[in-house]
Amino acid sequence: MPAKIVTLTSDFGLKDPYAAEMKAAILSICPSAVMVDVTHLVEKFNVRAGAFMLASAAPYFPAGTIHVAVVDPGVGTQRRPIIIETEHSLFVGPDNGLLILAAEAQGIKLMWHIESRRFMLPHVSSTFHGRDIFAPAAAHLANGEAPEEFGPQITDVVKPEFTKVTRGKDVLAGEVLHVDDFGNIITNMHSKDIDAFREGMVLVELPNQVSQLMKVSRTYADAKPQEPLAVIGSHSYLEIAINQGSAAAKFLAKAGDKITLSRI
Amino acid sequence: MPAKIVTLTSDFGLKDPYAAEMKAAILSICPSAVMVDVTHLVEKFNVRAGAFMLASAAPYFPAGTIHVAVVDPGVGTQRRPIIIETEHSLFVGPDNGLLILAAEAQGIKLMWHIESRRFMLPHVSSTFHGRDIFAPAAAHLANGEAPEEFGPQITDVVKPEFTKVTRGKDVLAGEVLHVDDFGNIITNMHSKDIDAFREGMVLVELPNQVSQLMKVSRTYADAKPQEPLAVIGSHSYLEIAINQGSAAAKFLAKAGDKITLSRI
Amino acid sequence: MPAKIVTLTSDFGLKDPYAAEMKAAILSICPSAVMVDVTHLVEKFNVRAGAFMLASAAPYFPAGTIHVAVVDPGVGTQRRPIIIETEHSLFVGPDNGLLILAAEAQGIKLMWHIESRRFMLPHVSSTFHGRDIFAPAAAHLANGEAPEEFGPQITDVVKPEFTKVTRGKDVLAGEVLHVDDFGNIITNMHSKDIDAFREGMVLVELPNQVSQLMKVSRTYADAKPQEPLAVIGSHSYLEIAINQGSAAAKFLAKAGDKITLSRI
Repeated sequence: MPAKIVTLTSDFGLKDPYAAEMKAAILSICPSAVMVDVTHLVEKFNVRAGAFMLASAAPYFPAGTIHVAVVDPGVGTQRRPIIIETEHSLFVGPDNGLLILAAEAQGIKLMWHIESRRFMLPHVSSTFHGRDIFAPAAAHLANGEAPEEFGPQITDVVKPEFTKVTRGKDVLAGEVLHVDDFGNIITNMHSKDIDAFREGMVLVELPNQVSQLMKVSRTYADAKPQEPLAVIGSHSYLEIAINQGSAAAKFLAKAGDKITLSRI
Repeated sequence: MPAKIVTLTSDFGLKDPYAAEMKAAILSICPSAVMVDVTHLVEKFNVRAGAFMLASAAPYFPAGTIHVAVVDPGVGTQRRPIIIETEHSLFVGPDNGLLILAAEAQGIKLMWHIESRRFMLPHVSSTFHGRDIFAPAAAHLANGEAPEEFGPQITDVVKPEFTKVTRGKDVLAGEVLHVDDFGNIITNMHSKDIDAFREGMVLVELPNQVSQLMKVSRTYADAKPQEPLAVIGSHSYLEIAINQGSAAAKFLAKAGDKITLSRI
Repeated sequence: MPAKIVTLTSDFGLKDPYAAEMKAAILSICPSAVMVDVTHLVEKFNVRAGAFMLASAAPYFPAGTIHVAVVDPGVGTQRRPIIIETEHSLFVGPDNGLLILAAEAQGIKLMWHIESRRFMLPHVSSTFHGRDIFAPAAAHLANGEAPEEFGPQITDVVKPEFTKVTRGKDVLAGEVLHVDDFGNIITNMHSKDIDAFREGMVLVELPNQVSQLMKVSRTYADAKPQEPLAVIGSHSYLEIAINQGSAAAKFLAKAGDKITLSRI
């Protein structure tokens, strides 16, 4: 039987030992776990951004992977620690919307509220449930404990709100989901939303800019260096990019901005 | 027998391949080692900060873990490479105070000066003992070599100086140990120092600020968003925090600052 | 048989899940792979900088290690995905010069153009070959697939250009290869180029500075704190450093700068 993969996603940053303490808790319970960091640089307290990161990475992991995610401004309050079982994976984290985008994409089977103290660290702090509740839960799941052992089944969970894409005949209106480290502006317009915009030129409107005319391209290098382009990115969402440059820096874009594409 | 865990702590940063070269040296000697980064973003040359990071994370790792740490402004000088054996773990690093805080918390059993060349890389540079001496030593320990094989036993080691907490009837005076990536101001006031300050309001004095009145809380979300609070953090030290914000940014605090709490 | 080591080098940064998606692809194909990050903070699109990072780290990994590297401004164009087999390792990445510095140092045996679709992910995007082509190729190699299965052998590959060191009787002229996270200015002057400069004082010329007189030292701490020095670094290249400080910040140096050393 191959070792269980446990992924970690958080807004802990990289300078503190917080992610390491989660890994320590995991290895203490499941010494054979194979741990992979998705990212620890989710914007602090930004549950939507964390949800997007996790949903981007989760599809590429093998069946049976356990994903633990912690962007948790409500730590220590009544918000519930939960487990979600999908057709493909298990997700562990706070019930604040962080897990649901990734889980829904895989088909949710069942959900549980983690209540049993025997799957938590002996001392549970009120400020770091990542280490004291979520990581141990993931490790016990990696050891083969059944999710129903952790607490009662639940059916209602918090869902993050994302703007829906609006489609007109020659216009698409949506939202910036994420600005990546290259400065690519990743929108919520999915490949299947934009059949009418797969080629030719589009006029792109962003909040802090005059409208930009750019070519719909197949890859970054289809534009000249430093030239903007629209492209279906590697997760099947439309991106505004600049070949070998930062579109976000040039167009002053950030997550949450409205964006409109018009065919011309 | 489960694989040996080797943790790595350093001030190397993340852009260079230095931590990777330590891991390469470890895997060359002990291919089954499970390696976990504690952090490589210790403030450069700040031995005290590194000592705090290592001491924070070490308690959560399983018995038998080997911790290698490198914040080493004296590399290439006469400062000694050492091994410390505790009731729980082994520590490997420079004799400059980096290891001692974590080791003392576990109960030090014995200490050795690493002298034997057969546990070092064939070529030992004078600027990178992390790769050439400390990582190989950790890997040989992971292979089961006894610490006494590495060199003579020692009893005197360098200890970092931390300000002691001063307790008055209604006043506690201490020091900022660390500002974490959330901007939480972590002090050296331990849970057990502050029994008298577990509830109610406290007046907090920091160097660059007028005194701040804040509530002693159980968790961050007990304050309103952007409101300051005092809270016992997840490592049992008192923190000054702002719910969903950065206390360090607001109060211009940094490690080493004096801090006073007065009960009112 | 020990698990296969796969290293990852890229300019993806650390905030996005891109490196994690490569690891997910690798584990999906080769669940026992041991993955080590060399760095994901190569300067964006800077193939030379990535080549230097990989060449620095590769020699320390055990024989049989598979190195996958992605700094790939030409992704989605006609630039070829390649495999290079050396006396020591396998390298996988784009044919843009990224692999060749590390590979040549180990002695190149054979090279191949990756063409076979059966070693790629089922859907190959035009913007993320790290996940869709290079990581799967590395994982299949880790599983023991022979490089010749991936496509035709090739003999001509792109090579990055590095300035050669010019040696006079009392003068050495070269280039800044890299500024590391400590601010050490790493030049292309190899230990063996600088026999005449191993001791005494040297006059160092950098573009944005008056000439600096400094001592050739054995290690950083041979200079007083905050004093500059010249030293053979841990990869056998000459560095300009400041003991416990940043030489790059003081001398405003960056990769690509010309640098001259004169013996006095």
